[in-house]
Amino acid sequence: MQYMPVTSSMFLLAETREQPMHVGGLQLFVPREGQSSADLAEEVIEAFSSCSEIHPLFRKRPAPPVTILGNVAWTYDDEIDFDYHVRRAVLPRPGRIRELLRYVSLNHGTLLDRNRPMWEAHVIEGLDDGRVAIYSKIHHSIVDGVSALRLLQRMLTPDPDDRSGSAPWDPTLIGKKRPRPAPTLRSRIAGIADAGLQVAGIAPAAAKVAVAGLRKPGFVPPVPRAPRTILDVAIGSARRFAAQQWEIERLRAVADALDITLNDVLVAMCSGALRSYLIEHDALPDSPLIAAVPVSMHTEDDSDGNAVTAIMVDLATDKPDPERRLNSLVTSARQAKNVVRGLRPLQALALGAANFAPLAFATVPGFVQYVPPQFNIIISNVPGPSEELYWNGARLDGVYPVSIAMEGLALNITVTSSAKHLNFGLIGARAQVPSLQRLLTHLDTALEELEKVARVR
Amino acid sequence: MQYMPVTSSMFLLAETREQPMHVGGLQLFVPREGQSSADLAEEVIEAFSSCSEIHPLFRKRPAPPVTILGNVAWTYDDEIDFDYHVRRAVLPRPGRIRELLRYVSLNHGTLLDRNRPMWEAHVIEGLDDGRVAIYSKIHHSIVDGVSALRLLQRMLTPDPDDRSGSAPWDPTLIGKKRPRPAPTLRSRIAGIADAGLQVAGIAPAAAKVAVAGLRKPGFVPPVPRAPRTILDVAIGSARRFAAQQWEIERLRAVADALDITLNDVLVAMCSGALRSYLIEHDALPDSPLIAAVPVSMHTEDDSDGNAVTAIMVDLATDKPDPERRLNSLVTSARQAKNVVRGLRPLQALALGAANFAPLAFATVPGFVQYVPPQFNIIISNVPGPSEELYWNGARLDGVYPVSIAMEGLALNITVTSSAKHLNFGLIGARAQVPSLQRLLTHLDTALEELEKVARVR
Repeated sequence: MQYMPVTSSMFLLAETREQPMHVGGLQLFVPREGQSSADLAEEVIEAFSSCSEIHPLFRKRPAPPVTILGNVAWTYDDEIDFDYHVRRAVLPRPGRIRELLRYVSLNHGTLLDRNRPMWEAHVIEGLDDGRVAIYSKIHHSIVDGVSALRLLQRMLTPDPDDRSGSAPWDPTLIGKKRPRPAPTLRSRIAGIADAGLQVAGIAPAAAKVAVAGLRKPGFVPPVPRAPRTILDVAIGSARRFAAQQWEIERLRAVADALDITLNDVLVAMCSGALRSYLIEHDALPDSPLIAAVPVSMHTEDDSDGNAVTAIMVDLATDKPDPERRLNSLVTSARQAKNVVRGLRPLQALALGAANFAPLAFATVPGFVQYVPPQFNIIISNVPGPSEELYWNGARLDGVYPVSIAMEGLALNITVTSSAKHLNFGLIGARAQVPSLQRLLTHLDTALEELEKVARVR
Repeated sequence: MQYMPVTSSMFLLAETREQPMHVGGLQLFVPREGQSSADLAEEVIEAFSSCSEIHPLFRKRPAPPVTILGNVAWTYDDEIDFDYHVRRAVLPRPGRIRELLRYVSLNHGTLLDRNRPMWEAHVIEGLDDGRVAIYSKIHHSIVDGVSALRLLQRMLTPDPDDRSGSAPWDPTLIGKKRPRPAPTLRSRIAGIADAGLQVAGIAPAAAKVAVAGLRKPGFVPPVPRAPRTILDVAIGSARRFAAQQWEIERLRAVADALDITLNDVLVAMCSGALRSYLIEHDALPDSPLIAAVPVSMHTEDDSDGNAVTAIMVDLATDKPDPERRLNSLVTSARQAKNVVRGLRPLQALALGAANFAPLAFATVPGFVQYVPPQFNIIISNVPGPSEELYWNGARLDGVYPVSIAMEGLALNITVTSSAKHLNFGLIGARAQVPSLQRLLTHLDTALEELEKVARVR
């Protein structure tokens, strides 16, 4: 038995059936020359299930009894029931991306079993384009989004001829220095997971630190209070997942032309898309939406992903003109970043905690209905691999984050980069965020608008 | 909004993530002449998803907020998100029954979303024998096992040429008098679901009634206290499901030769199988296991399944000789039945409640560890259809109950009859009941032993 850090406890305590606290990833692989998708799927299942040694991260589980001790201590299993944790799935015809997203939607809404190591890996075949998908699901008390992505990438290699493909839980991989993903985004500030959620539960104590830290001279409250929207509601457990990728070069061209960061362009895409979506549902508030954008406090070398905070960005969704919206949003983001830059790491962390504190109360029935939100959505950007990667010669063709929808935060947008693309993963509460797929169209339209503003198209 | 009966509330309140309170059914269909399994699956999906009117039973859901009002009142949705509730699944190769049971195992361990009508129907193709399976999952607060089975059967017809196949939630079906399943079992006492669970939560009040009723002269306490076994333990949410059918004629031959009931034979099979299983795990207790066998208090005509009680049967698992075990078990069952027969319905119901009362405390952490069990397993027998039935010409080839494993009751055996078979469905807590499939072999061996005792083989 081993006591867990408070950040892990908080994710376990904040979890309800309506608000599962696991993060996911959807990876798509192109089989190597001459290999069928069924063969690749079998190869992955075989490698994943035949690992004789398992890294402790994948063997730990809440200590029994799970409802009491399980919230504060870990225990370790010696063996893994691979038949349960590693699942083989086949999509129904016609096997479009639509069927794949549906599979992820349905599986992301169910809780992990707390009486065993809290992760699952689903190897999915049946895509009509011949690719094989791996949907993985791991509890946020075990890893944050950045660490999860790193884990997934450790099993990959830039060498297409390497045939030593293993499982993410192979302890020899986790020890080894595999190629680390280089931050592909120019903005140092941009690079962190849905890790804002990390601090979601560290309520009163951390908030006090924050208040102390922020009373120092020169502190400017980051943004005005967020308006009520259709996204700040109580939610059910059912989810809907949507995903799409855009070429990094398109966003970079806009960023370069306007001398803003890639992350600014990404957030502006979200802003434009949210505005269109809310107008479509006749639900655009008069005042602008506020987004929480998690910010990494990592140094280059540390390996776990707990040092995070968040800045609050005014999305300027009240402005119809794309150019004025972009300018307003970039100004807001810069001001918020300057606040974070001026703070020492602990203060910045505490600022994040203060901003996220109300989330800790989201599981109190009725809480979200009566307390105005501090922000309307979390928009995260997780740096992914900057080069082409392979598993046993199968090329990684896309990696989409599947994050967490919460009480009061019915929609989450998380983005991760791969060699040439930005991969958007949208997770929404199924009943509360209707027509989630429409947001993909709106994101595309928003990017086109920004390209016009930047005159690069 | 509509207040719900206390029996419904109890199933909602007793539910935890380790102890989901939904019942399931697995139906297998043989496509009609010339029809592929994919075509049949598509036909079912189409019929299930295109129902314009939905019976209120399938539209009701716990009233919001679900954690408070949702435990005592129902609300009704106008529309159904069929894309969520009706799911199409494909089994991975080689598509044996093993892959089908695995699918059911993995899906039966996850909670239903309380923020929408609490049911799912999974239409499953990919079986190598060309059959199509329908796995359905419905919360026990909505229906008990008997009613669930009736619902499923209402969409079927004895006419193989009938092409009006519809969905179980088609309100015109539920109004209509479709052929009702006739009890195929000779024992009137045999016929009820996992309905013992029905009374699981009606703790102190009902228990008092029971005590009052049972103090009447002539009352004999049904059986001695149950021993501790490896089945009376705290459980996780993961499940394992096993299923197999045996010809009714084989059991009837034994029953006729020995002048006992078909249900006696069925319970004796379970007894023999449990004995072998426990020996295999070096865990056979010295004193005999006690089974709770739910007993119907239904009259011929009533239609809802709430009037149930249970008798406690000494399974005589301590006796190595099959003949002595059978005799002992039949005597115990007869005595227990006589107690029930001598009671008026309310008293019998209360007797059931008294026997099941400790279950209500099973969700209190540590409770199952410290309180000795009153019984070790629930063995239920649900009468199914007595004739061949069809859906759009596709013949129903088997219908297996998928019941509930609980804290302290890690294994449940539920049996249902179809035209020529008894279909056994075994649901067990995955980590706590290892090698569940072995029980199927042991059931088969036990039947062979009984056939030898009866000299019919």
